[in-house]
Amino acid sequence: MTRPELFQQIKKKKSYLCIGLDTDLTKIPGHLLKEADPVFEFNRQIIEATHDLCVAYKPNLAFYECRGAQGLESLEKTLEEIPEEQFTIADAKRGDIGNTSGMYARAFFEQYHFDSVTVAPYMGKDSVTPFLEYRNKWVILLALTSNKGADDFQMSELKNESPPGKKLFEQVLEVSRQWGSADNMMYVVGATRPELFRQVRKYVPDHFLLVPGVGAQGGDLEAISKNGMNKECGLLVNASRQVLYASSGTDFAKAARAEALKLQQQMEKLLGQLL
Amino acid sequence: MTRPELFQQIKKKKSYLCIGLDTDLTKIPGHLLKEADPVFEFNRQIIEATHDLCVAYKPNLAFYECRGAQGLESLEKTLEEIPEEQFTIADAKRGDIGNTSGMYARAFFEQYHFDSVTVAPYMGKDSVTPFLEYRNKWVILLALTSNKGADDFQMSELKNESPPGKKLFEQVLEVSRQWGSADNMMYVVGATRPELFRQVRKYVPDHFLLVPGVGAQGGDLEAISKNGMNKECGLLVNASRQVLYASSGTDFAKAARAEALKLQQQMEKLLGQLL
Repeated sequence: MTRPELFQQIKKKKSYLCIGLDTDLTKIPGHLLKEADPVFEFNRQIIEATHDLCVAYKPNLAFYECRGAQGLESLEKTLEEIPEEQFTIADAKRGDIGNTSGMYARAFFEQYHFDSVTVAPYMGKDSVTPFLEYRNKWVILLALTSNKGADDFQMSELKNESPPGKKLFEQVLEVSRQWGSADNMMYVVGATRPELFRQVRKYVPDHFLLVPGVGAQGGDLEAISKNGMNKECGLLVNASRQVLYASSGTDFAKAARAEALKLQQQMEKLLGQLL
Repeated sequence: MTRPELFQQIKKKKSYLCIGLDTDLTKIPGHLLKEADPVFEFNRQIIEATHDLCVAYKPNLAFYECRGAQGLESLEKTLEEIPEEQFTIADAKRGDIGNTSGMYARAFFEQYHFDSVTVAPYMGKDSVTPFLEYRNKWVILLALTSNKGADDFQMSELKNESPPGKKLFEQVLEVSRQWGSADNMMYVVGATRPELFRQVRKYVPDHFLLVPGVGAQGGDLEAISKNGMNKECGLLVNASRQVLYASSGTDFAKAARAEALKLQQQMEKLLGQLL
């Protein structure tokens, strides 16, 4: 998917919501457990109930891999249910030496036909560029994550860099933006630090940001939108648990839709004159 | 597996060789392609031919994931062929927020019964600790990798840290060693920078180091052993392509054994009085 196509979809749906498919067999409603593939059936109903309110779906690979080959079958079937117009994100946080990253790129782009994959920056340029060789596919690089551990290294101040006080996540933004462009790279910036979105925008004014951490992790949609939105929206805000597990009864899909609708309506207001 | 068990195996086999199972369908001998599962059959014969010369096997997950559910079946069957005494490493370079890292831990430790998994440090403590909750299982954290991209961020100098000139990979070692111990954490340190092993040992004198980059990537076994070995060896040196693809004919397993034997014999000398 191209950047104009993504923005077009955002304007049409008045939404920049991404729904994270962190589907946990121990959390889905009990009545689904009698299905042949409960995870797939849960995802199918979630997608059916929410696809007009969101612009992206983000399966979290860990939740499928922990069930082995069977889990990947649930993932493959889920991807077939996602409408073509949706932007799909393999939340996998991969990154390895060049030939291995090339294999991961094959896995996500050729085997599963995802539009994008999340990648960790620690191993540097040659761990990222193999993903950028695919036309209209995207790398979403970790910059500033939503968890407490982000303080351990991402916020470390670097020596001899300008401006003084520059942090590792800023260096990741500045260095990595040269590896691709706003047409094939996005960045993960956690919703739990809304005050840092202005800082992020100094380095990457045009790139889309994938923003996890709204809902269960406590991020503030209004604050991150005011600080992070650009003229083509430039935000994909993810909600997972808040939507997926809104109800643990047979009405789970209806309850998920109600949560997604609340977020979409807030987003419509925040998009304001971009629409 | 415990640290004393691993050292015991090293002394018994006079080897600290790890064989990386980066098994690529496009590189294995053509005559195997008629097998029902060529990747598994290749791995089976490699393991049969080399298991007395090495102490660990390291399947590279990317090479299995790129073939979807089918690839993971090859992986599962391969793991069943690896003798119990071997230390097994899921080379997966994972790392995510706590609940997701917990799912990856389940995948590698409960679903596949690996002894260890490689983890990227960028997301900090809570992305790593879920893996440490498993008894006798290991995290192998990326510190200084063997690729060119290691220069991009790992070698960045930090401000206000002692000693002056301290680099990000040193900070990763110093901070993360507090999350576990030498009994449940190892570090990846690439063979391509043998001069930095003494620096690494200042931070983690007792930990095992997993050392990729010998062979195809050009690392020097003697130099890294002289600079990096400790009183319980403390090294697992990985070879992948050099062993796996020593011959592309029907004699591939024999040729792999010859390459592994060469490495084992060098290691026996380098182990010297530890034996």
